[in-house]
Amino acid sequence: MRQTEHDRDENTLPATMPAYEAVRELTRLEPPEQAEIFEQIPEQQATAIFGLLDKGVQQQLVDRLPPAQVVRLVESLEPDDRAQLLEELPAPTARNLLSNLSPHERQMTAQLLGFPEESVGRIMTPEFLALGPGLTVAQALEKIRREGQAAETIYVLPLLDDEHHLLGLVYLKDLVLAPCDQLVDELADTMVRPLPALEDQEVAARLIQMTDTLAAPVVDKEGRLLGLVTVDDAMDVLDREVEEDLAWAGGSEPLARPYFSVSALRLARTRVIWLLALALAAILTVNVLSAFEATLEAVISLALFIPLLIDTGGNCGAQSATTLVRAMSVGEIGPQDLLRVLGRECLVGLLLGAMLAAIGVIPLWLFVGGPVALVVALTLIVICSLAATAGAAVPVLADRIGIDPAVASAPFITTLIDAAGLLAYFLIARAILF
Amino acid sequence: MRQTEHDRDENTLPATMPAYEAVRELTRLEPPEQAEIFEQIPEQQATAIFGLLDKGVQQQLVDRLPPAQVVRLVESLEPDDRAQLLEELPAPTARNLLSNLSPHERQMTAQLLGFPEESVGRIMTPEFLALGPGLTVAQALEKIRREGQAAETIYVLPLLDDEHHLLGLVYLKDLVLAPCDQLVDELADTMVRPLPALEDQEVAARLIQMTDTLAAPVVDKEGRLLGLVTVDDAMDVLDREVEEDLAWAGGSEPLARPYFSVSALRLARTRVIWLLALALAAILTVNVLSAFEATLEAVISLALFIPLLIDTGGNCGAQSATTLVRAMSVGEIGPQDLLRVLGRECLVGLLLGAMLAAIGVIPLWLFVGGPVALVVALTLIVICSLAATAGAAVPVLADRIGIDPAVASAPFITTLIDAAGLLAYFLIARAILF
Repeated sequence: MRQTEHDRDENTLPATMPAYEAVRELTRLEPPEQAEIFEQIPEQQATAIFGLLDKGVQQQLVDRLPPAQVVRLVESLEPDDRAQLLEELPAPTARNLLSNLSPHERQMTAQLLGFPEESVGRIMTPEFLALGPGLTVAQALEKIRREGQAAETIYVLPLLDDEHHLLGLVYLKDLVLAPCDQLVDELADTMVRPLPALEDQEVAARLIQMTDTLAAPVVDKEGRLLGLVTVDDAMDVLDREVEEDLAWAGGSEPLARPYFSVSALRLARTRVIWLLALALAAILTVNVLSAFEATLEAVISLALFIPLLIDTGGNCGAQSATTLVRAMSVGEIGPQDLLRVLGRECLVGLLLGAMLAAIGVIPLWLFVGGPVALVVALTLIVICSLAATAGAAVPVLADRIGIDPAVASAPFITTLIDAAGLLAYFLIARAILF
Repeated sequence: MRQTEHDRDENTLPATMPAYEAVRELTRLEPPEQAEIFEQIPEQQATAIFGLLDKGVQQQLVDRLPPAQVVRLVESLEPDDRAQLLEELPAPTARNLLSNLSPHERQMTAQLLGFPEESVGRIMTPEFLALGPGLTVAQALEKIRREGQAAETIYVLPLLDDEHHLLGLVYLKDLVLAPCDQLVDELADTMVRPLPALEDQEVAARLIQMTDTLAAPVVDKEGRLLGLVTVDDAMDVLDREVEEDLAWAGGSEPLARPYFSVSALRLARTRVIWLLALALAAILTVNVLSAFEATLEAVISLALFIPLLIDTGGNCGAQSATTLVRAMSVGEIGPQDLLRVLGRECLVGLLLGAMLAAIGVIPLWLFVGGPVALVVALTLIVICSLAATAGAAVPVLADRIGIDPAVASAPFITTLIDAAGLLAYFLIARAILF
């Protein structure tokens, strides 16, 4: 089934190809071929490329490359990237790799792995360069020249007291622009609120994005600096969150690796659970319909509008759910806004239902006659209000009880609404037609 | 309807509040109150806060604040942020603001506005600091100290020849770490591929994310440097794309401003067009059902499974569409992959349908008897294959004809699939039951 459209004659990448293009090429291959081609890349280039690869692809390579090369590649990663890769690997592989690292790297990695998944501690770099108060700009620059090579970033330099408490941040930009004899204390940005190491990664990433900063400081409970979270890690965190939100909005699990490196069987596996759970929930609709089988038999034309009505309800619920999930994920809405949000969305649903009913009622009248047209129009209004309200309530309530609102997303709400919408449809029909 | 849960006694923000927290507070307010509170903020703090606000909120403030303050705020923005704000404003307001800027700022802004929307030219900063070949590290640092204040970033310094052609990029980090007498030529990264000014913003943003770089160079057709795109702008571009993708996945337009600053009526307006278009498409299902009204009347229990079947088809199509939209937006899949993708997704749909049918057939048999159970099970297989294939085909084809794949998203595919699924259902029913 696989077709390779590239005019690559041999199983190698051109030596002059920039690292990110090699990354793109590798990402489009299936795992065995990925490893085959990766092995041909000269060591130094391979190290740079490995660092830019997606965690999922790194993992696939770790499974397939010679152990000695794997150790060198993993050793070359930045501590936070390494911790994230090891976390994804099977425990024995991870332990084995960890024990093969140099003592310094091993200790740093183990420290990061000590923080919970999804916490800021996992993605910070402990390789920062700290300045002390009382240094002049010239002394600070000299210190950076001497010791900066080992730091992951020198663009943001924490100013620490003797007990490692954060006094502020000094930006390299300000150091370079300032007169040589100025004290770094005067340059430090002291308005920075450090992140607790246990803070959620997404909160940290959003903060970095909002404040247009290059790195944010991470501290322990006593306010001592543990590390820095850099902007590139923040971008990766946000990207992972987006992948999750989108996958859930479509009713499946995030792949966490490139599309083509996942087999069709595995794709089916990531989707079947959701599909099955949703189908089980949809059995409710069968129950509702079988309860009203007599009504349906008496007025068969009611059946004609079942898909239209439940589609519209589903769409309306999906609109409100995705709007809210997004607003919550950027922090515009919190769990305390439940009532405010419900009121707004119920009103929006009412407006939408009324608009659709107004547009539809005349054509319906001509097509199926007055009574059924009235039933369908009224049902549209009820279903849209219901759907928009539920679409808002479910994600906000999910957040309140500590579930990621994005899980409680469109397909879930659609199914939830369907049974309620059908119930409304047949109750209205019974009231008007009989 | 509005409830403010904050214990803010007066209409002001505390003076010690960090800018990003003030941004968060303002974002949760409705427009008139936003302006009221913003006016109370001292000038210098207000400038910093304004720069961090969402374009939508900036726009609302421009409409409501005193004109003199608006001019000062807009003047204080970085050129690319200013160009993006002006682009959103009504033309007369934008022209008026532009004419009130200082000549230098006006000229830069007009230059950026000369590039097409969505192009890299719009988000680059023309305020870079260039180095020439032959400079020593000490000379370069001295030049930065003298002239760097005006540049938006000094972390990435383009190395240019006499005709402004890009020779490479010098990173401030390397300058600071290098010996004073080294030549900048030796430090320059020459493997960088500059972005054409007309390149799509998302492509540029993805590149910056992938390469973990702080700024990427933008050049004209002759390869002369025009500006730099910085990582914070790249993050904003990706975030806007995500907002669009998510809104479309839910079947509505992106709000492009904070949730609470949009009235219920306006929310309904952003959603009604999609809802109406989808409802119109769903009329196809009414047609299919009315063509099979006789079949339905003969075996009324067929009606019971209509919602279950079309929900499952919709969910299956949504899964495959969102997976593909995501894979395309990160560049893993291109339009040339159509056949490869269709084959995979058709197989995945077949697998999913077969699994659901296998799980469902026995309970169905007990509930409605053998023949209808067989019809439903077979329909599940057909619908899932159809839905997964269509869910893959539509976004890839949309991309081929130059439409953003995310528009051709879940609700669209669900509706498309429904009529086809019903058709399959009744054809199978007719073949087996009569």
